[in-house]
Amino acid sequence: MKSSRICLKYLVESDTDKLLRAKAEWRLPESVLLFPDEADRVFQDPSVHGVIIATPTFMHKDLIIRGLSAGKAVFCEKPIAEDIKGTRQCYEVAEKVGKPLMCGFNRRFDPSFSHLRDQVLLGVVGQVQLVKTVARDSPLPSIEYLKISGGIFHDCAVHDVDLICWVTGEYPTHVFASATAFIPEVAAINDHDTVAFTMKFPSGTISMTDLSRYAAYGYDQRLEVFGPKGMVASGNERPYQMTTSTVQGESQPPILHSFPSRYYDGYINELNHFCDVIQGLVDLQLSGENTLKVSTIATALEESAATGQMIEIKY
Amino acid sequence: MKSSRICLKYLVESDTDKLLRAKAEWRLPESVLLFPDEADRVFQDPSVHGVIIATPTFMHKDLIIRGLSAGKAVFCEKPIAEDIKGTRQCYEVAEKVGKPLMCGFNRRFDPSFSHLRDQVLLGVVGQVQLVKTVARDSPLPSIEYLKISGGIFHDCAVHDVDLICWVTGEYPTHVFASATAFIPEVAAINDHDTVAFTMKFPSGTISMTDLSRYAAYGYDQRLEVFGPKGMVASGNERPYQMTTSTVQGESQPPILHSFPSRYYDGYINELNHFCDVIQGLVDLQLSGENTLKVSTIATALEESAATGQMIEIKY
Amino acid sequence: MKSSRICLKYLVESDTDKLLRAKAEWRLPESVLLFPDEADRVFQDPSVHGVIIATPTFMHKDLIIRGLSAGKAVFCEKPIAEDIKGTRQCYEVAEKVGKPLMCGFNRRFDPSFSHLRDQVLLGVVGQVQLVKTVARDSPLPSIEYLKISGGIFHDCAVHDVDLICWVTGEYPTHVFASATAFIPEVAAINDHDTVAFTMKFPSGTISMTDLSRYAAYGYDQRLEVFGPKGMVASGNERPYQMTTSTVQGESQPPILHSFPSRYYDGYINELNHFCDVIQGLVDLQLSGENTLKVSTIATALEESAATGQMIEIKY
Amino acid sequence: MKSSRICLKYLVESDTDKLLRAKAEWRLPESVLLFPDEADRVFQDPSVHGVIIATPTFMHKDLIIRGLSAGKAVFCEKPIAEDIKGTRQCYEVAEKVGKPLMCGFNRRFDPSFSHLRDQVLLGVVGQVQLVKTVARDSPLPSIEYLKISGGIFHDCAVHDVDLICWVTGEYPTHVFASATAFIPEVAAINDHDTVAFTMKFPSGTISMTDLSRYAAYGYDQRLEVFGPKGMVASGNERPYQMTTSTVQGESQPPILHSFPSRYYDGYINELNHFCDVIQGLVDLQLSGENTLKVSTIATALEESAATGQMIEIKY
Repeated sequence: MKSSRICLKYLVESDTDKLLRAKAEWRLPESVLLFPDEADRVFQDPSVHGVIIATPTFMHKDLIIRGLSAGKAVFCEKPIAEDIKGTRQCYEVAEKVGKPLMCGFNRRFDPSFSHLRDQVLLGVVGQVQLVKTVARDSPLPSIEYLKISGGIFHDCAVHDVDLICWVTGEYPTHVFASATAFIPEVAAINDHDTVAFTMKFPSGTISMTDLSRYAAYGYDQRLEVFGPKGMVASGNERPYQMTTSTVQGESQPPILHSFPSRYYDGYINELNHFCDVIQGLVDLQLSGENTLKVSTIATALEESAATGQMIEIKY
Repeated sequence: MKSSRICLKYLVESDTDKLLRAKAEWRLPESVLLFPDEADRVFQDPSVHGVIIATPTFMHKDLIIRGLSAGKAVFCEKPIAEDIKGTRQCYEVAEKVGKPLMCGFNRRFDPSFSHLRDQVLLGVVGQVQLVKTVARDSPLPSIEYLKISGGIFHDCAVHDVDLICWVTGEYPTHVFASATAFIPEVAAINDHDTVAFTMKFPSGTISMTDLSRYAAYGYDQRLEVFGPKGMVASGNERPYQMTTSTVQGESQPPILHSFPSRYYDGYINELNHFCDVIQGLVDLQLSGENTLKVSTIATALEESAATGQMIEIKY
Repeated sequence: MKSSRICLKYLVESDTDKLLRAKAEWRLPESVLLFPDEADRVFQDPSVHGVIIATPTFMHKDLIIRGLSAGKAVFCEKPIAEDIKGTRQCYEVAEKVGKPLMCGFNRRFDPSFSHLRDQVLLGVVGQVQLVKTVARDSPLPSIEYLKISGGIFHDCAVHDVDLICWVTGEYPTHVFASATAFIPEVAAINDHDTVAFTMKFPSGTISMTDLSRYAAYGYDQRLEVFGPKGMVASGNERPYQMTTSTVQGESQPPILHSFPSRYYDGYINELNHFCDVIQGLVDLQLSGENTLKVSTIATALEESAATGQMIEIKY
Repeated sequence: MKSSRICLKYLVESDTDKLLRAKAEWRLPESVLLFPDEADRVFQDPSVHGVIIATPTFMHKDLIIRGLSAGKAVFCEKPIAEDIKGTRQCYEVAEKVGKPLMCGFNRRFDPSFSHLRDQVLLGVVGQVQLVKTVARDSPLPSIEYLKISGGIFHDCAVHDVDLICWVTGEYPTHVFASATAFIPEVAAINDHDTVAFTMKFPSGTISMTDLSRYAAYGYDQRLEVFGPKGMVASGNERPYQMTTSTVQGESQPPILHSFPSRYYDGYINELNHFCDVIQGLVDLQLSGENTLKVSTIATALEESAATGQMIEIKY
């Protein structure tokens, strides 16, 4: 299904076959296909309002700056750049030209998670005492991907960190992470497949997260917030609703398999938010300050896992 | 576990081995063992306040009348007697001697069902429009038992009829039943293993029940009540709380296997109600009028299944 | 969201404002707007492969026959015509011209229900003994709509009848319905808002359905199939996944509110099936024979509710 | 309800009223009531096989040693003694006299948790990668109790530590805890009401636990075990099974309120295990080595919370 809100004027991609297939499959007769070295046509077209960047990470910074400098709103999948310095530079350009730069923290746009946060803000649990997230990937990413992923903290933990800070409205002062590589191929590239981390916030709130690179039963994404008045929790969804009861017990189909199905609605909402920002209907929910702090926290977690020590963060 | 509230003075049973085993297993040093022909000792003992009858049906009437006539409160498993005439006679004796005769409609004492009814009485769903029950047996009773069971309507449907009338506070004016015997042995004895029946009440409320003699996945007992404000529903329980998530999906252990486990708490509450009645703490919840009407309804359902016609009931 | 598979060449509608709004909202620059009396342009356009009819019922037959006669595949919301004779006539035309006429029984295309049926066909429950459906509407339709709805049996029960026959692969020989109007406005138009009906099939399978015109807690749509090996059941879905635990207990958000949200995926699948049929990729799942029999059954149920008698159906 | 397996020969208690009420309520005509200074009669009675100690902690050590020295099996609520030295001394006496000393880690006897562990041992999840427990108390204990509780790590965390080590079959080498006192009265006594702790095991397994002194929605006790093949999880139970669906959504009654109801079956199983050990039917499941290590871990967690550092444990 495609959005009725967007006219996709240009598709920029080096693989022509891929482009032609997409054009046909999605019925995009109006879309112009360009090779990457023709991308300037996009930036020079005054009818283009926004640019969506979903390239490998090393190309992000250059494209973001070109897009912003041409006066376009820019949406970019995380991370904004390969390092904090590059990220800061991008946001500085955004501020200078007065155009929005939106980082793709898609979980905020998941209907369940955002309803849950609304409840927290309404005071349903009272003062937040504990926030827990679970993020277990499915299927296991390829080793090729893992090699260029930036490591489990910058590739995965950032999503949980962003989600938790968004829910609590605070940034942690102390973090601790413990990590293991059970999969030999993951150990061989000095990464981890299993992580537990704890963050402590100025208000006293504590968060706990566990990450895994592979859950056999599907893409396990959970959020739980606890306080003196109670708890709100959001679990997983299934592709269809069916229980089977036999002599062995009662079973349900597996939860959604991976991020495209699990965050299907979230991706739509995320894109609509980008459109809303372009049209001036709402303010951008994701600030540069937030992206920079989340990145700082991920680095601190990585250091904690490496040193075995709690890390105090000064922003 | 045994009740601290009851002193079991006599155990009457023809099978001595069974009795001795029970006496040892349950640590009943004070209980006196009697053969059935010695049962008069029970009735003549002034320290006996109540008699519990759990014999084959054909012995019920005689024992009930002897118990009541001796001034004892009597609890008897359903049915009170082999026919409506006998049942009426028993209740007449109870009334004459002023002693309670309690029929074992155990489902009313199930904590889930009784909480559900409380909600209905509090008006949570508003005017009751629809009541649904499910009663699927587990395991499949033996053919020996089925032969003497009195048929699925008098053996099983009575429980649902009692439950529905108790929840609605009405007795139906019209009933319709459809029945099948899928199991050849059940067909051979002219009984049914699968029944669906509908009852209509003076207020317009409709009830629907389905019965089965065998559910592979456990003893399936459900109650649902629907009205303009909403629905209350009570489902099944499991011996332990555990979910297993694998590549096949998520599973839970089977629901409770049969009536002794499913209605464990209900049997305790039932017995406590009998004690409460004996001690004058509460009025008997189960009237003779109710038992007689439930029996009349079961007979009408049986007739409907046999004739294929809706039956109008006049009490 | 809109399908990438369909080019909507014409929109035929008498209300111009409505049309212009739809054209803008859905970004349909290629679609031509026509008044009903210009509809011939659609039928005469050789590039049109299919026609979708979603008009008031009284216009169905004429449009279907014009579409089919022009060599178009036709999709029409149920009912095909105002009476069985008209329905039969439409299917006869379809057969004569060799073009598909697809009736909109959308529930078959619901992912949960169709997965459930797959399990039944795979033998997960064994010989089907009992099928149960629940269909409680939300919100309460307007009295204006109810007046022209054709009555609860032809407007609502047909969906359950179709679903049950589709799952069992049989048509019932005997049906019984009991019905009440609790809502005075519904009583005033001689319709019912609450219905329970039972159907018996040649194999001995029994079905039970309850219908309501209004469920306060959302659009309640359930399907349950029971046999000697177990049970498969499909329940309701929620717009988001969240539990709130407080001193009052644990709560979840209401189930989906009405048919557009509940059958969102089903409507997409239904439309894709129509496209697949047009492209010759699959056979039409919904035969004329089926539509005619479902209509016959609805009429029998209506008669049963009116007479209080079980109705035997001869097709 | 009372066990048929035990004859409670003596009840030792300084509060006579309490004793007399218990004797009456539980129908214990054979039980002899003693004041604490008469306790020697218990130890000298050769017909006494076991002693159950449920006194304030400071009396444990003396009673345990007297009981064991008199040749009795001893069950004692945790902690065995006020410090590790005293605990070690008790187990040394037990070994010397060859009598069992059983520490009351009741969670192992919970049917759900022990079934879950069985599944883990059967390899259902594969190599354990992550274990999570939740233990949130209900209702909030009195400040009087908290003052003498020994602190949240020795009072509460020990149960989770024991459970986790029992499930994994390992003891952790590194632990980290983060803690907060949100309740002013708890802060005033230098204790915590909210704790998150992480443990790392020799195999690479990581555990995560969160504790709270107060959950408004009931006694929240959960266990989850994750590995490459999947996950097993055990949640909470409710006093009855009922859902209420209204315009506000669907609700269930609160989970069980506190430990006596939540671990009702667990306490029975625990006592039966003690009986089994006395009768020589099974070996004692809870070794002195385990109790000592669990106590060492609790002390390390307390130190971690105080210092903000990860603690390495050497046993």
